[in-house]
Amino acid sequence: MNIKDEVERQAINERHAQRMQRKKQLIDEKIASAQIRRGLIVMNCGNGKGKSSSGLGMVMRALGHQKKVGVVQFIKGAMSTGEEKFLRRFPEEVEFHAMGEGYTWNTQNRERDIAKAQAAWEQARKFLNDPTIALVLLDEVNIALKYHYLDVQMVIEDLQQRPPMQHVILTGRGALPEVIAIADTVTEMQEVKHAFKSGVTAQECIEW
Amino acid sequence: MNIKDEVERQAINERHAQRMQRKKQLIDEKIASAQIRRGLIVMNCGNGKGKSSSGLGMVMRALGHQKKVGVVQFIKGAMSTGEEKFLRRFPEEVEFHAMGEGYTWNTQNRERDIAKAQAAWEQARKFLNDPTIALVLLDEVNIALKYHYLDVQMVIEDLQQRPPMQHVILTGRGALPEVIAIADTVTEMQEVKHAFKSGVTAQECIEW
Repeated sequence: MNIKDEVERQAINERHAQRMQRKKQLIDEKIASAQIRRGLIVMNCGNGKGKSSSGLGMVMRALGHQKKVGVVQFIKGAMSTGEEKFLRRFPEEVEFHAMGEGYTWNTQNRERDIAKAQAAWEQARKFLNDPTIALVLLDEVNIALKYHYLDVQMVIEDLQQRPPMQHVILTGRGALPEVIAIADTVTEMQEVKHAFKSGVTAQECIEW
Repeated sequence: MNIKDEVERQAINERHAQRMQRKKQLIDEKIASAQIRRGLIVMNCGNGKGKSSSGLGMVMRALGHQKKVGVVQFIKGAMSTGEEKFLRRFPEEVEFHAMGEGYTWNTQNRERDIAKAQAAWEQARKFLNDPTIALVLLDEVNIALKYHYLDVQMVIEDLQQRPPMQHVILTGRGALPEVIAIADTVTEMQEVKHAFKSGVTAQECIEW
């Protein structure tokens, strides 16, 4: 490397360090002004991939921090999934309930779907009343709410009355605005591209 | 329930069943036309929550299906996370490498960041050459690409030359268009609301 290149390299590195110092100052100020610790309602909605899997990732984090976790799956249950096989290995750490029978177009039975959704909510409520459970994942609950299989006011009250440090994650398409309103962190998973539309089937590891 | 209500209830259930039968037909046709099985490149990008956690959820699914997993974290590494604590419990099933030292505004050292990113890519490449690994998570790799700490053409070539059934998940803000172009499933995690902006600090189980 000649001297000119070396001088230029040092100048780039120096500018980078200065930019990052300024950035760090701004970020440190933001961090200093965000010091509240409390249980959150996290909502993963939208049509893209990643709603349930992100919930499962937070389950993994909670298990890493040696917290107890409760999972209720509102739609899944008709087939065994990777998450079910995995989480059943830790019965002391995770209480796992897959209480659905498949999507509404598979079951084709509204009254049975309603009964299943309500039974699943009974289980969810047990978790929401249990302060030893640090994190509750209510997977695909948005779908049960969208079809009015669950009363949204009842759901909101149960969520708001949970232990103050407990986190709850809600997932699924078609999130109701009333539920979005009471959530703390809401992400819309937007589909930019999906392999299924290029002819790729739903595959293990990725979708289930 | 009087007879009028009972008749109405049956009519609602009947209409529901018919609608769901039609929906199932459409969905079955779509499923029938998507039968390819192959390894996917899954990209989780955008500014919202859920990019890394969704990747971890797919790691969990793969473990449930008794597959071997490789994880490289490009930014994380300066502090211990829930996912690290958890995944280190399964050394036979997951090879886990947290090879970063924090965000660029924390490290403030461009040359050191570049060296770290390149070392992390060397590890990623080992996974991408190993057909016994079913799923590879390259967490926050988009950030290393955005800052040009890694050569994008090299990364694309290594991804494209991997074993045909191997899935790879890339996460992070600022995804480059060249990488989006070769991905199979791309989701933009869009922030609708974030607890941090309401004064809530980054909390264990949720963010780490």
